[in-house]
Parts: sequence; C-alpha cells; structure tokens
Amino acid sequence: MAASSQVRTDGNGSLAHRLIGDHLVEGVLEPGSEIGLRIDQTLTQDATGTLVMQELEAIGLDRVRTEVSVQYVDHNILQTDGRNAEDHAFLRSAARRFGIWYSKPGNGVSHPVHMQHFGIPGKSLAGSDSHTCAAGALGMLAIGTGGLEVALAMAGRPLRLTMPEIWGVRLTGTLPPWVSAKDVILEMLRRHGVKGAVNRVIEYHGPGLICLSAMDRHVIANMGAELGATATVFPSDEAVREFLRSEGREDDYRPLAAEPDARYDRTDEIDLSTLEPLIARPTSPGNVVPVREAAGQPVHQAVIGSSANPGLRDFAVAAAMAKGRQTAPGVSFDVNPTSRETLQDLTRSGAVLDLIAAGARIHQAGCLGCIGMGQAPAAGRNSLRTFPRNFPGRSGTEDDRIWLCSPETATASALTGVITDPRDWAADNATDHPADLPALRQGPVNTAMLEPPLPPREACEVQLERGPGISALPPLDPLPDTLHTPVLLKAGDDVSTDEISPAGAKALPFRSDIPRLADFTFTRIDPEYPRRAAAHRDSARGDAEDGGHVVVAGDNYGQGSSREHAALTPRYLGLRAVIAKSYARIHWQNLANFGVLALEFQDPADYDRIQQDDELRMEKLHAALAPEAADTAESTLVVVNVTRQEEYRVRHRLPAGRRRTVLAGGVIPALAAEESHQEEGGR
Amino acid sequence: MAASSQVRTDGNGSLAHRLIGDHLVEGVLEPGSEIGLRIDQTLTQDATGTLVMQELEAIGLDRVRTEVSVQYVDHNILQTDGRNAEDHAFLRSAARRFGIWYSKPGNGVSHPVHMQHFGIPGKSLAGSDSHTCAAGALGMLAIGTGGLEVALAMAGRPLRLTMPEIWGVRLTGTLPPWVSAKDVILEMLRRHGVKGAVNRVIEYHGPGLICLSAMDRHVIANMGAELGATATVFPSDEAVREFLRSEGREDDYRPLAAEPDARYDRTDEIDLSTLEPLIARPTSPGNVVPVREAAGQPVHQAVIGSSANPGLRDFAVAAAMAKGRQTAPGVSFDVNPTSRETLQDLTRSGAVLDLIAAGARIHQAGCLGCIGMGQAPAAGRNSLRTFPRNFPGRSGTEDDRIWLCSPETATASALTGVITDPRDWAADNATDHPADLPALRQGPVNTAMLEPPLPPREACEVQLERGPGISALPPLDPLPDTLHTPVLLKAGDDVSTDEISPAGAKALPFRSDIPRLADFTFTRIDPEYPRRAAAHRDSARGDAEDGGHVVVAGDNYGQGSSREHAALTPRYLGLRAVIAKSYARIHWQNLANFGVLALEFQDPADYDRIQQDDELRMEKLHAALAPEAADTAESTLVVVNVTRQEEYRVRHRLPAGRRRTVLAGGVIPALAAEESHQEEGGR
Repeated sequence: MAASSQVRTDGNGSLAHRLIGDHLVEGVLEPGSEIGLRIDQTLTQDATGTLVMQELEAIGLDRVRTEVSVQYVDHNILQTDGRNAEDHAFLRSAARRFGIWYSKPGNGVSHPVHMQHFGIPGKSLAGSDSHTCAAGALGMLAIGTGGLEVALAMAGRPLRLTMPEIWGVRLTGTLPPWVSAKDVILEMLRRHGVKGAVNRVIEYHGPGLICLSAMDRHVIANMGAELGATATVFPSDEAVREFLRSEGREDDYRPLAAEPDARYDRTDEIDLSTLEPLIARPTSPGNVVPVREAAGQPVHQAVIGSSANPGLRDFAVAAAMAKGRQTAPGVSFDVNPTSRETLQDLTRSGAVLDLIAAGARIHQAGCLGCIGMGQAPAAGRNSLRTFPRNFPGRSGTEDDRIWLCSPETATASALTGVITDPRDWAADNATDHPADLPALRQGPVNTAMLEPPLPPREACEVQLERGPGISALPPLDPLPDTLHTPVLLKAGDDVSTDEISPAGAKALPFRSDIPRLADFTFTRIDPEYPRRAAAHRDSARGDAEDGGHVVVAGDNYGQGSSREHAALTPRYLGLRAVIAKSYARIHWQNLANFGVLALEFQDPADYDRIQQDDELRMEKLHAALAPEAADTAESTLVVVNVTRQEEYRVRHRLPAGRRRTVLAGGVIPALAAEESHQEEGGR
Repeated sequence: MAASSQVRTDGNGSLAHRLIGDHLVEGVLEPGSEIGLRIDQTLTQDATGTLVMQELEAIGLDRVRTEVSVQYVDHNILQTDGRNAEDHAFLRSAARRFGIWYSKPGNGVSHPVHMQHFGIPGKSLAGSDSHTCAAGALGMLAIGTGGLEVALAMAGRPLRLTMPEIWGVRLTGTLPPWVSAKDVILEMLRRHGVKGAVNRVIEYHGPGLICLSAMDRHVIANMGAELGATATVFPSDEAVREFLRSEGREDDYRPLAAEPDARYDRTDEIDLSTLEPLIARPTSPGNVVPVREAAGQPVHQAVIGSSANPGLRDFAVAAAMAKGRQTAPGVSFDVNPTSRETLQDLTRSGAVLDLIAAGARIHQAGCLGCIGMGQAPAAGRNSLRTFPRNFPGRSGTEDDRIWLCSPETATASALTGVITDPRDWAADNATDHPADLPALRQGPVNTAMLEPPLPPREACEVQLERGPGISALPPLDPLPDTLHTPVLLKAGDDVSTDEISPAGAKALPFRSDIPRLADFTFTRIDPEYPRRAAAHRDSARGDAEDGGHVVVAGDNYGQGSSREHAALTPRYLGLRAVIAKSYARIHWQNLANFGVLALEFQDPADYDRIQQDDELRMEKLHAALAPEAADTAESTLVVVNVTRQEEYRVRHRLPAGRRRTVLAGGVIPALAAEESHQEEGGR
C-alpha cells in the first residue's frame, strides 16, 4: 500500500501507535501509564453539550483552541416541553460565542454528520458521547469521554487517559451476500463479549478491508464502544479517499496504514467469508447468536438507523428489499435517517418512496429510539433494531425485548413478521442480494445547514441565550486550609450516582439549572439533606471554613453512571470532602474535577466510629496537598472528630496534577485562573 | 348546478337540513330540540379509541353496525415508554375483533386519511375527535363527539344532539395570490370569535367555492370546530368529484347542493378577493389580525401540517417557496406530513427534497405538535403553525407563544426569521405565487397499509391483545332502590374534571387501567378519598345498598375537560350520587352515562347543612326514576340525613331516556343488556 512509506517508525508500527504518538504531549507509549493527547477536533451533542458550554463559560474561555469543534443537536429532539428548544437556542448562542460549528436539529446524528463534513484522517477527536469512536473509520484517533474532559480539550488542554494496548484484528476474505458490516462487529461481540476490549484500541487491517466502505467501517468502529474499547482505528485508504471525494473533501485525504511488520499487543483474525447473519438477543450487545437460532419469533417493531448503521447502503438495502412489498400487519417499521444528507440522497434515489409505500414510518434525522427518545416498543414484544445497545429499559420500556442486528435481518423480519435470516427470506422470495447498493453520496453536497463559527470580533459580542431553565454554573471557591465541618450525611455501601443526583421525571426539568437540581441531591437516601446542607452553607456565608460539610460512606461510593452532576450538585450545597471506604473510579475523578476531597479510611473500621452530625476537623490541607509534597506513603491526613475526641487517618491518593485542581476548587476555577492570567498577559 | 334537481324539499332547502333530514331517526328539525341521527361511518383515534374499544367490549358488541368504522393511530405516536405501542396492539386487535378498519401508525392524521379513503358525500360520520367536522368538505354530515357516543353509534344507536341552526355563508370572488383557505377560516374567526358558531351548522355556498379544492374546504371545515360549530357542510360538486377520482373512488361521488331558494337561519358573506393573509395571535384561534400588523417579530419555529392544512398544495407551496433557499438560522422549520399518501406524493414530486435541502425537519405522518406530542417551542419564543389551536400550554410549553397561519405565511416567516406577510416576501424576492400547485394526488393509490375488517367468522375468534397497562372496564351494577350511604367527600364550587380525575405524568400511565387510575380520584382535593371509598365499597361487597357513597359539592361541579374518566373512576370506587348546587353540562351527561345520579339541591342553603361522613338515605329510587314517572315538577327526591335527622329536597332533571340508563347502572350495562337480549333472540 502506498501509505506504508509514510509511516513513522516510532512505536510498534501499528497505526494506532502512530496516531497516539503524533498527538502525545504527556507520558510514554507504555500500556497502563497515564498519557496526555493533543486534541484537534471535538464533538459535543446536546444532551451533554449544555453542561459543556456552561463549563466553558465558567472557565471564562474566549474561543476554542481546537482546529474544529462542532456542537450537534441530535439527542433531545422530540421536544415534549419547552426545555429542549430552550437548550437548542442556548447551544446555538454558545457555539456562536465560543467559535464552534453548530449543527441544528434535523441535521442528524453527530457521528455520521461529523464523518461526512469534518472528519480528517490522522486527526484526533474527543467527543462527549460514547460512540465518538466511530470516526476511527476514517483513520482518526477518536475517543468518547466525559463532558468536562471535552471542555478541557476545547480549552486547548490535553486529553488524559491510560495508554491502551493495541489489538490488531486481521480481516480476510469477503462478506457473503446478506451478511454485512454489522455482522462483523456482532462477531467480535460474540467472540469477546462486552468487556473484551477494555483498555484496548482495536486496529483492523488486512485484505478483507477491501469489501468495507468507509461507512461500513463506521458501523464497526462505532460499536467498538460496546466491546469497551478506548478507540477503534481503520487505515485511511482508497475507500476513505472515495468517501471524502464524494463529500467534496478529497483535499482532506491522506493515506495512513500500519507498517507491514507492525507488532500488536494482542491479535485476532476474522475470515469474513465464514460469517453469517448474527443477532444480539435481549438484553446485552454481547448476547450474540446466529439469526437462524432465533428465527420464527414474532416481531412487533423493526427500526433501521442510528450511528451503528448510518450509511446510505444500510437504508438502500432495506428499501430494495421492501420495494413493491408490504411490511407485515402489526409490525411498526421505523426508519431513522441518520443525517440530512443521507435522507436527501435516499429521497433523490427513490429509496424513501419505496420505504413509505411498503409501510415504513419515516422519522426526522437524529438518534431517536437509539437513546430512548421515542419509539419505545410494547413490553415483552420483540423489537429488532440496527442500534448499538439493548440494555434493559434503554428503549424507554420496562421489560423490553430489544434485539440488535443488520438492516438486512431487520427488514426481512419486518416483511415476514417473525425473526428471519435474510438468506431464508431471499430464498423464499427468489431474490438476489441487491447489487450496486450506493455506498457514496450521489448528489451535490449541502452544508448550508451547518452554521460555521463566527469571526472572533463578532463572536465576542454574542450573548448566551439563557432561557428560564438554564443557569450559569455556580462559582466554586478554593479549598480552605482548615476544614471544620459537620458530617451532614452518613451513607452505606454502594451509593450510586443515581442516589446522589437522581435523574427521572422530577429532576430532569432542572438538568441545566444546578441550584434547582441540587434540591434533589441525596434525597433518595435522606430527603432532608439538601435543606440541611444549604442552611449550613448559607448560615456561614463568607467563612469558608465553616460553610462546608462532609459525607461519610462505605465501599464503592459513586458507582453507576458517569454523570458529573453527582459531584457538582453536592459541591454546590457545600460538600467539601467525602470519607469513604472505597470509590467507584469515574466518580472519584469527578469529585476531584469539581474540587471535592475524596478521602479513604486507612482503617475501614473507623467508618463505624463516625456518626452523622459529628464535627470533624482537618488542618494544614494546603501543605498536605501541595504538588511538591511527597507521594502515596505520606498522602495521609489526620481527621479529628471533635465531637467524639477521636482521630482517624485517611488517604487521598491524588497524583500531583489533581492535587492542584482540588486546591483550586476544581478544574473549572483552576482553568478560569489560567485563562484570566493569560488574558492579563495580553494575548 | 346539476345537483339541485336531486335536492329533497323537506326542511328549509339547505344542504345541512337535507343531510340531517336524511339521517333523522328521532325528533324534529326544530333548532333547539333534541334529535337522533343514524350514523353511517365512525372514526376513532388512538387517544380516545382505547376507551371506546373497552366500552364496546363491556357492551358485549359482536360487530359494529355502521357501514364503515375506522380506528386510526395518529395521536400517541412518539412512544416514550411502552404504553403507546401497547395501545396500538390493543387497538389493532379490537379492530379485528369488532369489524373495524385499522389504520396503523404512520398512515397519518385521521381526518385527511378518512377523506382520502373513506369519505362519501351524503353520509353521516361521528368521530371521537373534535376535528371530525373536517369531512364536511366532501358534503358529509360529520360531527365530533365523546368516545361513549361514538361507541353507541358503532353499536347502531343514534347520535343524539341538539338540532342546530343552519348558518349559510356565501362565498364570492376569488382568493388573491398568497391568500389561501386558511385565511378564509381565520377571517370567519376574526369576524365571529371562538363561540360564533355554537349550536350552528355552517354551510358554505356561492360562486367563490370554485377556487377551493376539496382539501382547501377541509381546511375550512376542520376549523369550524374553533368557531364552536356543530358541523360544517360544503356541497358535493365537481371539486369533490375530481378529488374522489384522484383517489380512485369516483363511484363514491354523488352531487349534493342546497336548493337555489334555500333559507338559512342566519347568513353571512365573504368576498374572497378582499381577503389578505391573516394570523391568530397567542393564545386563542379567535385573536385574528392581518399578518402585516404582526410583521417583524422574531420567529423561532414554523410548523407546516396538521388536519388544519393537510392538503398536497399546503406542503407544495411551502416547498416551492423554500426551493433553492435556506430557512433562517435559529429557526426550526418542522414539516408534519398529514398522511402517508400525501408524503408519498410529495416525495415523488420532489417537494420533500426541496424542503429537506432548505433545512426542514421532516417528521413521520401524524398529529405531533398539533396535539402537544413533541415539537414544543422554547418558552416565550414565537412559533408559527398551520395548526387549528393555540390555547396556552397546548404546545407542551408553559408560556408558549403560538400563532396560527397559512403555509404561505409560515414559510415566508421561516425563510426570513421574522413574522412576514408572504406578499412582502414575494415582492422582496421578486417571486410570483407558484402556479399549478398540485391539489390532487398524482400517483397510484396505495391502500395496502389500511387493514380491512375481518370477515365475521374470523373476527369472532380474535382475542383482544391486552398488555399489562390495559384493563377490561369494571362491571357497573344497577342503581339500588334505596341508597343508604355516607358522604365520603364534601367539595366546594367549580370542582374541575382535572380535580376529579387528574391527567399528568403520574396518572397518565394508568389511562387504560380503570382500577389503577381510580387511585388518583379526587386526590387533589383529598388524598385519602380513594382509599376511603374503596374500603367502604369493599367492606360491603354484595350489598349494593351500603357499598356506595355520595359526594356533595357546590356550584358548577365537573367543569373543564369532557373526559369520561371523571365519571367512571369515582363510579368504580362506589360513587352512586352527587348532590351539588349546579353542574357543568358535559360532566352532568357523563355522570348519567356512567350511572351516577346527579342531584341538585332545591335549596342551595342545604349545602351548608351536610357535612362529610354524614349518613344519607334515599328511598324508592326506582319508582322516582321510572320513565313513566311524571316530569320535572315531580322530579324531586327526598334525602334524609340520618346523622343530623334532617331532610333535603333535591332534583334530578333526567329526561325519560336517561332515567332508564341511570337505573341500569349506565349506558354500558343498559346496552349490554340489550345486546345479550338480542343474542338470546337468536340474531
């Protein structure tokens, strides 16, 4: 391959190593060590983006420092009350303020739209959505992560992560008829399960790539998230060049591939010609079986679309199969165009007309049912979807029965009314697999709906359009040198982030209004906590040593979702430190990011000695957390229980970088200080 | 007109009189008197249809007795949890069981679909949706009413209503460019307000009709509901013949018109050539002003669609205006195809492609934002819609700002970003009004998605598919001869049906499960009521005289929405009688329909003498309510307050027909008895 001559020789010769090496600004290429990467592009969607924009505002950022940052609106587009439209207006104003592209509702799902209009081989991309990894289809280093991490990347800071292992998966052979890209990633899930690629980058290579278009690769890269992979990487080859050409962006093409003698930390091989149609049973993407083993079960819904099957060919194959036929009575056949561009191409080609005539419900472009926004099936009835996930209840229905499969399998099943291997359907209907399915766009490129960043002079005049439901982030003050605080809550083991900051119908309206959302903090454990904490905080306004409080907990504190609100809302109410037996990893990071001291009992038995309302005192925190203070062994602090006249030893485990953050009151005030320093420096 | 020779000479010569006369089975054609009409066709939508089907089941109906009954699914199609899909499955099974056509989700809004596939000039139509009146566009007598009334019509019973006045509106002249059918009905609303046609049928006639296609007339007939009209009637003329021909149903055509010398109870005239683009300001369809008076205000959303602008030309004009242009940044331009057929035609013609390219969000066919299912705008931001209603909050957003206008005005405003008179937009863009907009369908008729009734032998084998959220209606027993019951609730004036049976997020999940929904009864007034009532009922199982209870209330009991649940759920909990100072009209009817005795204090001062938990006794109810018992003067009953040893006199006001119903325990057991009698009679 022509590309090989351009491959650098550092690393192990894999393309993943090269991409990481090209963006490495901190650390070494040693699996397991912490590294920092320069981020060229960012992607935010609306569900996570609102908080990201509030964070940029709180940081005081003037303009993003990436090459390209794009704010998409694809998640909350059903608009059952005014909040979503309010968020959209806020996001657009923030995009205009901070120099970000804005992709308005109706343009489609972030991942395919980003690939169509912004993705560039060799660039790094961080996105506040777990399927950001899809862009690996173009030879990008694309990583999904938390909103604050993306905000930091937008502010020009490196993205920190654990250096992954590189897992080379060699593809050989050619896909048989009625077997497509989705079956390749389902085969990976069948072999390795949903944790099979944790702390790994999957790199696909080999002669089998030739039968996979860029969008087919997107299907496979996207669902790398379901394997737990840090990222998925494909080479940038002729398929990528053709794709970029069809998008009017051939200039963005550069060839990229592994060196011929690349060494991988781990290897696997798939002979594509041996694959058959596969399906993931309820309720995990890892429950993969051949379709024929599930055949014959009644189907009540089939859905085509999502970032896990976003390509033109994925819809075109469904249309070709449905043309001149009718979906079975009682089956809802839902078609979710993944982007405005794809819908335009499908409409022009007549595919949409065939789908409508066959009984499809054509929906607006966006995520929709894939993230539980509509299209919820009836309880206990089988729904086949080309989506990436089928966790229980994610569809919006308790006791749902969601299956994941290819468009071929979903469409064959919609036509017959039972789960159907598309090869059997083809035999029964004496139908060949449609030839020449369009893989590339056919019409002129329309980018008029993508609003480019404003020039800096105009941008700095833009006011954020903050509707009644969107607050500014509350200010976060530095950690005092002495904490003399009551224990306002003593909780047990396995406190989840859902218990700390509940989602659900009551809290959700206030998702973008931290002061109001804070009223729900810990209420599942203790309905009085928010009032007690706020009263304590407010009684001591102006005296940081006494306005804060401590929460004491058992093992595995902060398990569950990665939502940052679970750190931010108690912090807003005055939480300064948690003392627990142990922490869930992501919430531990979130606590540090929002300036809360996460302390661990050195002797877990001390947990039993502290009671709610005890007064605790910790002194000389600044010296103890100074970056230059010696590490781990000395990272213990003394907690004096003033009420009981006892002392406990606790650990903080903060590496030097994070200590500075906690001292500053969290990442946001730390960065805000740097930003204002830079401004004073006269940039 | 050729039709005039066929007009009957009874009545006043108006077409409305003739249609009513043709279907009259009870009463006389005297405005204000109660009449009963034979119903040829019924239409139910999913939001009201589930209860209708439960009622048919409780009645024990074997098969509908109409010529055509159609169950549509157009309201609850967002599916944010499993309930909507569960309802759809239930509705389909009920349609198959009872001999009803089933129009599945994605086929579109009931009114235009009914007009396209089922409407026949001269037939009567009752529908459980207030915009059923739209079918008057085809020369039908089409009336929207409550679900139970439609269930009765499906069971072959006459539809009872007050004989309306006939209001002849003569149309002359021709609509100017950029002025369309919506402006005609907005002009009616500007002149007469939202109560202008209460107890009237509006009959349009005159030479101006020639410029209005059948679907244009649908626009006008549909929003007769906003004038409060009982129905709207257009003649069946060449425009109707052409429409039916384009739908492949020319055989269904028959010419119908008023006699040349028709006398109307009231008359009005509109010279179409004098009209200009009009718009209804927030928050009533009656707040109509010329668009130019509102011009320049910023617009954040524009929506095309709904049964108030369902025609091909309504979308085609938007597409022609948007072609090659872009909607303003920050404007969400939403397009709701009103039927699968219309979407198919628009896709085939290229109109959809033009709309997508201009930035539109193309949604599935259905009601959507028109009934507050999605598309809610941001609070305080202007949304222009071609919809029929803009009552505050109906959009889903508190503090919404919804304007109603034509597709021309909505599209011009979406393109400019401010409220814009389309004539000004045309002048600014040097654009003529698009000529030859398609008014009639262009492709083959596709009815494959409409599921026809099953043959009787198959239908009787069908089991209702009752998901976990759908109960059977509870049995309703006859009124005992003696009521000896406690007052379980004493409420004040103006108790609304919302207070009796709340909607909202907590109660809504149980909308089709009466026993569970009953747990919310009166809880806004007294959270303990459901428990108290159920305990009292259950303690006395088997002894009807003591298991029931009474509610005492002040003036205007049961104001607000017409929901039947507000009668059914307290009845389920044992409510046998309400004693109030006065009643809201519709709830009074609903109480009678569900077998609850609605009594009025003869002396309102007695209200103050009864207290909650008092024991009341009423005797010889059967004799007092016997149909042969003399009327009004004697329609008083004695209530003995056993607790206080007092007596009160109360009135029931029930006409003979309704007395029988209340004695039987409500309409459903009354009809069930007749049905089983008929069956025993060996039909």
